[in-house]
Parts: sequence; C-alpha cells; structure tokens
Amino acid sequence: MGSGRSTEDFEESFVTEVKNFFDSAPPLKDRSVTNEKLKEFIKQHSHAAGDGIIERKIVCITSGGTTVPLEQRCVRYIDNFSSGHRGAASTEYFLKAGYAVIFLHRRGTCQPYCRSLPDDPLLECFESTKSSKIQVQQSQAEAVTKAITDHYAAIEAGVLLKLRFTTIFEYLQLLQMIGAALKDLGPRAMFYLAAAVSDFYVPWESMAEHKIQSAGGPLNMHLVQVPKMLSVLRKEWAPRAFGISFKLETDIQILLEKASTALKKYNMHAVVANELETRKEEVTVVTSNGNFCIRRDKSDAGSDVESPLIQLLVNMHTTYIRENLQSRAASSQ
Amino acid sequence: MGSGRSTEDFEESFVTEVKNFFDSAPPLKDRSVTNEKLKEFIKQHSHAAGDGIIERKIVCITSGGTTVPLEQRCVRYIDNFSSGHRGAASTEYFLKAGYAVIFLHRRGTCQPYCRSLPDDPLLECFESTKSSKIQVQQSQAEAVTKAITDHYAAIEAGVLLKLRFTTIFEYLQLLQMIGAALKDLGPRAMFYLAAAVSDFYVPWESMAEHKIQSAGGPLNMHLVQVPKMLSVLRKEWAPRAFGISFKLETDIQILLEKASTALKKYNMHAVVANELETRKEEVTVVTSNGNFCIRRDKSDAGSDVESPLIQLLVNMHTTYIRENLQSRAASSQ
Repeated sequence: MGSGRSTEDFEESFVTEVKNFFDSAPPLKDRSVTNEKLKEFIKQHSHAAGDGIIERKIVCITSGGTTVPLEQRCVRYIDNFSSGHRGAASTEYFLKAGYAVIFLHRRGTCQPYCRSLPDDPLLECFESTKSSKIQVQQSQAEAVTKAITDHYAAIEAGVLLKLRFTTIFEYLQLLQMIGAALKDLGPRAMFYLAAAVSDFYVPWESMAEHKIQSAGGPLNMHLVQVPKMLSVLRKEWAPRAFGISFKLETDIQILLEKASTALKKYNMHAVVANELETRKEEVTVVTSNGNFCIRRDKSDAGSDVESPLIQLLVNMHTTYIRENLQSRAASSQ
Repeated sequence: MGSGRSTEDFEESFVTEVKNFFDSAPPLKDRSVTNEKLKEFIKQHSHAAGDGIIERKIVCITSGGTTVPLEQRCVRYIDNFSSGHRGAASTEYFLKAGYAVIFLHRRGTCQPYCRSLPDDPLLECFESTKSSKIQVQQSQAEAVTKAITDHYAAIEAGVLLKLRFTTIFEYLQLLQMIGAALKDLGPRAMFYLAAAVSDFYVPWESMAEHKIQSAGGPLNMHLVQVPKMLSVLRKEWAPRAFGISFKLETDIQILLEKASTALKKYNMHAVVANELETRKEEVTVVTSNGNFCIRRDKSDAGSDVESPLIQLLVNMHTTYIRENLQSRAASSQ
C-alpha cells in the first residue's frame, strides 16, 4: 500500500523488460552455427591444462556502434557513432598479452592490425602495373604486409574469433550467447565492453512495417530505453567474469560521476571513462580502489592510449584471478 | 483574406526554408579545394570540341545514404540504409557508355568495379605466405585484379571524379556545388540521383550540443522535413540538365503513384521506381511518355538491372540533347 515501488517490484519489472526485449527481437541468423564456432573456440583454450600449460585467459571485446531500426523492413535506423579503433587496438594488445580474443564487432568497422590503413585499403594502397598486374604502392607496402600477416597469424593460431553485428538486437543476443559460453570459465574470462550501444530503441512489434512517409509533415518518434543488460551480464550470464565497461560523454563535467555510478550499479571491476574529444590522448579508469588516469606516451608519435590501458587491466585481471582462486581454496578447506 | 495559402506565399516560405537549411548547416570542410577539383574535372571534358571531338556528356551519380546527426558533437545519428551497389554499378555502365562521371557517394559504401568483392577485401582476399609476403588468394585473384585495374584506368583517364559525403548537410552542399558547376553545360549534364537522402532532420541550431542522456526515461524526438531540394536543383541549380530521380518504397501499392507524383512535382525527366525487396531484379522507369519496366536478364547469372537501365537512360538523354539543340537552333533562326 506504500507509495514507492519496492526493490522486488523493480526487479520483477526489470526481468519482464529484459524478457520482452529478447522475445520481441528478430531471431539471430545462423544462431546454431555461431554457437558451435564459439564453443569450439573456447574449448580449445580450456583443454591445454593437461599438458602443464596454464589455461589461457579469454576476453570478449565488443567494438563499434549498434543500430536501432526504425522500420521493420529497414530503410532508416539510428546509429551510434564509433569507428571501432579502440576495440581493434585493444584486441592487438590483449593478443600480445597472451589472451584468446572474441572480437564482437560492428560490420565494416576497424579491424585489428588495420588501424593505420586508409578507409578503402584495396583501392587506396594498391596500383595497377603496365602488365595489368596489381602491386602494393611502395609507401604503403610495410603497413599492408604487416596488417595481413599479423591478422592471419592470429586467425591461424586460433586465438582470434571474429563475430559481427549491426543492430542492437544482434549485439545483445550475441553477447548473451558469449556470456553463457564463458560462464564455466569463471574469473578467467573478461568482458571488455567498448562497443557504443544504443540507449534507446523502438520495440520490434510497435515498429512501422513499411517506410515512414514524409508527406505527413514533421516526424515525432517515441523511443524506449534499452534494458540495462550490463546488469544481467554481471548477475546472470557470467557473474564470475572480470567486467570492464566504458562511458563516453561529450561533457566532462558529468563523465566521472556517471562512470562511478555505473561501477557500483552494475558491479563492474572497472569503468573506462572517455571524453569524446580527448579519448585518444587519455582515459580515466574508475575502480573501487580509486581512479587511474591513463595517458598516451606523447614522446612517441606512434603510441596510443590502449597500450598502457590494457597493461593496467591485464594486471588487475591477474590479481582478480589469484584472489578468486585463493578465496575458493580457503572456503573449501 | 482567403483561407488557403497562395502559390506565391508557398514559394516564399519554401525559399526561406531552403535558405535556413543552408545557413544553419555546418560549413563544408575543404570547400574551395573540392570546388577547384570539380571545375578542373568539368573543364577537361568541355574543351575537347576544338579537336573535332564531340564534347563528352557528364553525369553526376549520387550513391549511398545520408545521415542526420541528432547531436552537434555527433554521437548518435539517423541513417538511411543503402549499400551503394546501384550507384557503383551505374557508374561502371555510364563510363562504358563514354560519360565522364562525378561519383558523389557516402563514405565506406560500394565502389565502382568492386561489387563482387567481399565486405573487407584486404583481409578476405589476401593471404600471407611462409616468407611473410602477401598474395591474393587464388579464388579471388581475377576479381581483385580487375577491380584495381579498371578503377585505376578510370581515374587515370580522368573520367571518374569521386567526392564523399556522410551527413545530409555535406550531401546537399556538394550537390549544390556540382549543380552550379554543371549549369553551363546545359543538356549535356545529367543528374542520376540514386542516393538515399534523409527526409527528416534536426536543424543544427536546435540540436542538443551534448550527448542526449538516457536517464530521463523514454526519448521523444521531433524532426522536421528536409526541404525538397530536387525542386531547387531542377529550377535553379541546373535547370537545363537531364534529371533522373529514384523512389524506393517497401510498399508496392504506393510506389508507382509516388513516382508519378515526383515526376510532375519536380519536373524530372524520369523517376526510377524501386521496391525494396525486388529492386535487384526489376525497376520501373516512370516518364511522361509512359512507364518502362526494366528487368535483369535472368538467363545470365552475372547480369544486373543497371545494365539495361543505363542503356535506356543514355538513349533518352541523347534524344533530349538533340531536341534541346534543335529547339535552340529553331528559336535563334
């Protein structure tokens, strides 16, 4: 009979919201093929212990922005800006640190080892010779060769699995699938959620089937909030995994405040706070042990902020695994 | 004192609307460099007459979708879906028919001669050899070589100029610039407007400066109509050019009706009517002399609908130029 909603009511309505989101989402194409591929990839890195090798750590890196369709037969959609540079760079450093990487990325965004290439590398880096053969332009030869060689080495070594999304519906269904597949790895799994995920969406069922007509004058659109899936990921999908999320704001004033709130609200291990304009120079890693400001090494023109960032997170993850194993050992004594 | 708006009032308010759109648009980057490049390109194809060569016809092909930013420091935007396949294919056929082509396209969309390549040709078509050299995969060798060779041939022959846009603001400013630059060519210029242009936008000045916050519950957005620039293009920018526009609808019922309305309203020479699901198989060309249904040759697996479409339009354009010259000659007698 009270005027406020109880925590239980809130929990219940949230569970309903999440259920509605997934129930109404258009089903994922090739779901079972993707799931098999994913399980095979994870299994491969969990069965090395018998040979005395330490089991490999696995990180799921999300990268690029999600879209929200405005029409069922999609002509128009809302997109979140993200080039995917951060996710691609981070993938390189996690691979270098010995992780196996599930690179869950937006179609067409930046790929690992390709950061320094132009937008359209095929047409911008290659040229045609007089004998109608093609060759890499001299100025681009090193970058192109390195991109292809390093990318192939990672794929062939079986340490890089690439999965693609476009819409918020595909992204969250894939994230749920990865969460379930990594659940048994406990603290050895990490989620590094760098994708720019839509906050608002038009529920599939209430969406216009056909293209919205422009003759009717101005357009008023009503979008609802996407349920905060970070919460579900941390509580249900993979509760023992190490969780890193990102906050991007254009207004520095509210950035750190929102990052700390997210840290507590979603029980993350760290939140990486980015300001749109300076995000390539510095980020702040917000943790329950305090904030760490990470800056790019300005004395090196080729340096980036991801290199020191991943170094910090890998160390934090190692500590987390050790503490987790110790507390398990202690509780089983 | 009447209740309806007079035609003059309507005209006046439309002129104001167009002026407001351009006045409030963020200025184009590298405007003068682009304008120089464009004028140089056109000049090159207008000075061949002295050698007894027939002056080249020039077509401006627009391709891909425009975006509408929702925030000034853009994190979110509304996008119109378009792969740019039609524009890329059409460019190839217009070049083959002897036209010089200004390919005004959305960044990252399909490029001429690259239609058969995978999304990410560099990583999907090349491989690394044991000696750390790179090579094209055997299965893709022909397609990749042809793409690079043909693309370079067109660029080097000076018959293909590529200009890029992302937002509706960039697109319309570039289209206006091209219109002005082609004005003097009269009927020899063609506009083939295949881009998927946003119908609604948020005026720059009324746009949120910072990222829209999601904590405030559902999002209601108010978008206004983009002024119908086809009308300005046909009346002011390049009134003697041959004009082709496109209509894409998901609902076949309203498609032909809307195409005919557009033909009359904007005084186009043809409107190409596409239905989203069948657009790669057939289109209807709506003209004042009747409708032409253009179908892909199904007996040839590699055929497309653009080949017969461009053939039809090139013939119509030739007739238009001849009639235009005859009527000029008649009126000067």
